[in-house]
Amino acid sequence: MTQMHKAREGTITPEMKRVAEKENVDPKFIRDGVGAGNIVITLNNKHDWIEPLGIGKGLSTKINANIGTSQDTCNLPKELEKVDAAIEAGADTIMDLSTGGELDFVRKEVLKRSSVPVGTVPIYQVAVEYQRKGKEFYKSSADDLFEAIEKNGEDGVDFITVHCGVTLETMERVKKEGRIMGVVSRGGALLVDWMKKNKKENPLFEHYDRLLKIAKKYDMTLSLGDGFRPGCLGDATDRGQVQETIILGELTERAWAEDVQVMIEGPGHVPINQIEANIILQKRLCHDAPFYVLGPLVTDIAAGYDHITCAIGGAIAATAGADFLCYVTPSEHLRLPDTDDVREGVIATKIAAHAADIGKGVKGAMKRDILMSKMRKAFDWEGMFKYALDPKKARSMRGEDLPKDNEVCTMCSELCAMRLGTIEKEN
Amino acid sequence: MTQMHKAREGTITPEMKRVAEKENVDPKFIRDGVGAGNIVITLNNKHDWIEPLGIGKGLSTKINANIGTSQDTCNLPKELEKVDAAIEAGADTIMDLSTGGELDFVRKEVLKRSSVPVGTVPIYQVAVEYQRKGKEFYKSSADDLFEAIEKNGEDGVDFITVHCGVTLETMERVKKEGRIMGVVSRGGALLVDWMKKNKKENPLFEHYDRLLKIAKKYDMTLSLGDGFRPGCLGDATDRGQVQETIILGELTERAWAEDVQVMIEGPGHVPINQIEANIILQKRLCHDAPFYVLGPLVTDIAAGYDHITCAIGGAIAATAGADFLCYVTPSEHLRLPDTDDVREGVIATKIAAHAADIGKGVKGAMKRDILMSKMRKAFDWEGMFKYALDPKKARSMRGEDLPKDNEVCTMCSELCAMRLGTIEKEN
Repeated sequence: MTQMHKAREGTITPEMKRVAEKENVDPKFIRDGVGAGNIVITLNNKHDWIEPLGIGKGLSTKINANIGTSQDTCNLPKELEKVDAAIEAGADTIMDLSTGGELDFVRKEVLKRSSVPVGTVPIYQVAVEYQRKGKEFYKSSADDLFEAIEKNGEDGVDFITVHCGVTLETMERVKKEGRIMGVVSRGGALLVDWMKKNKKENPLFEHYDRLLKIAKKYDMTLSLGDGFRPGCLGDATDRGQVQETIILGELTERAWAEDVQVMIEGPGHVPINQIEANIILQKRLCHDAPFYVLGPLVTDIAAGYDHITCAIGGAIAATAGADFLCYVTPSEHLRLPDTDDVREGVIATKIAAHAADIGKGVKGAMKRDILMSKMRKAFDWEGMFKYALDPKKARSMRGEDLPKDNEVCTMCSELCAMRLGTIEKEN
Repeated sequence: MTQMHKAREGTITPEMKRVAEKENVDPKFIRDGVGAGNIVITLNNKHDWIEPLGIGKGLSTKINANIGTSQDTCNLPKELEKVDAAIEAGADTIMDLSTGGELDFVRKEVLKRSSVPVGTVPIYQVAVEYQRKGKEFYKSSADDLFEAIEKNGEDGVDFITVHCGVTLETMERVKKEGRIMGVVSRGGALLVDWMKKNKKENPLFEHYDRLLKIAKKYDMTLSLGDGFRPGCLGDATDRGQVQETIILGELTERAWAEDVQVMIEGPGHVPINQIEANIILQKRLCHDAPFYVLGPLVTDIAAGYDHITCAIGGAIAATAGADFLCYVTPSEHLRLPDTDDVREGVIATKIAAHAADIGKGVKGAMKRDILMSKMRKAFDWEGMFKYALDPKKARSMRGEDLPKDNEVCTMCSELCAMRLGTIEKEN
């Protein structure tokens, strides 16, 4: 029985209680949200060595960090180091996107190492294994896909990205409009190629009931992937993307009818003035299912700094109602991230999520900012480090250039505004 | 005669023509904007060795980088290196906020070195020179202030921050409401202390006509400072800040009556959901005078990463209509920035300005993004580096981890979505 099923029966599970405690809300609020589908608890029922996590309406914004080996750069210890770095920096979930090495083993190791929920994209494994056999992905069958998905469930994976909205209908819409970048989602591109060469419907859409059955068995949350997400500003919010969102909304209802928990993935590269519209559209078409955005990146030209373009887009998206932000690292579009990139990416996205939580009125979100400000006014540097998002970084930057008077800093020195600028409250 | 005076007479000056060329708009548009006060051309009439720059309504968003010696960290060659780094990274203006060393000499050197307009905050010099004489700033006179301002005009400074809205009335409002951080503007704090100890009105407000006379003589744009800008989210958009904006609106009209060009400075630390309201308020109360925002920072807790909190706030502010963004570097709140911090700060703010220009529909703003995307789809790495905001950084990051197949990158390797994901346009 899934959390959604239990919620609909009126039960408050221990997982709901724990999520409520962490979010500082009433357990009934969690139960009702899970029952209605606007909150998910991403916890595979076999994954009993981590804390449950709630994502959705009325909760703090969560952030995900992608890690994983690639065919070029395959070093498992490094990837596990990235898991640690991401969690230490504040990632709420990890996605293992590995495509290099023994994938079953890698996934199990990531699951062992991570103290937070783990997501995967099972289609990658099918593609890699076909490639290793010297065959292209389009030769694979629905059985191959569902076997991979089942293995993920069995291992305890908490949520999987499945590109069920990549359909012949969506593809037709993209064909009619034309695109600069085509399909930039790996899973989406694999399925498009599969459909084109087999002249058949996407098996994840065609056999969606089979997918629901596996998801239900493990209470594995489906993250309905946006295979047609825009890969550049010029392709944003086009027919293909909107068509896919419509279909994802229909698939959401079918999942909910089976008590399967669902999130919806969203763009991608989006001009800043279209972000809010994207959130409103998804929330309406997918009936308030939690929205998991990949970025959005607000420009295409910032290779090397895409953690910043992502932080801008993510902050706006989350303020407008997105529930879950996937980080982007500085190395996006250039190479596999290293551990420092992972850390930078998580922190940038954490800033976005925190700023948004203040903006959307999450209870207590501004508390730490107020405490930090009081420490600043009191010149209490230890206090400032304590409340800083990254105490180590703050301490080390200050330490690189210490002032003579250790109360102030070397920016304003003796001219520090906070010394002269006190105005006592008077009624 | 100022640019504003000439515009109002119907003249299109060579400076207006040059700005129009750079902005790709009709010179009449610039003339009319300068005449109406919603565009400024920041160019001291003695500063004949740089290009004129337009800031305001209908133009691309500009960005400023602050540099300058401090009392603790005073190294002029380093500061001049920062001028170069900032301009190379894309800064449209430089503000010299020096408070260490021989300030007249430092200012002249910065003016010599910079190929873009230079701004200053003349009150700092008065404060520093009094301090060196062992006296506090409140002992200074209106004459001291105006002499410093005159020297800045004489040297060719293009715009000066003057905290004319820090008045007894505003101070009363702050007293009644109470604040966590008090006054965090250096100029604002100095003037508050002056007013409190002398029990007199701010001389920059009291003798505003004298200020206008100097500004007019050199066509030095007044950047009406926000001495009461919030220093933390908890103080944002409070009575003191709004009261000051009202006064700045009145002072704007008085400047315009004398053909003096004016910008308005704005916050500061602002919750993400209050940014747009701040822009609308300023634009309305100050009759569309160009808005120059310092951030805004969307959280107080990100010391070490405040270039990112600034990029988030700046992108939203500029999309909503702010015309000019002051950068913040990673070392803000911790120490004087070094050259790398300056570069990082400029690039982060440049990303914000560029994203906003796309969002607010600046003509041609998305062109480079489209070109970049076409290069990506074509796997043309040299093309991608060419259109990247920071080609050096993009090239070096990719080079750190090259794939076997040099068409792709080590993130997705052979599974690159762009190979499989092409969908040809069909009508």
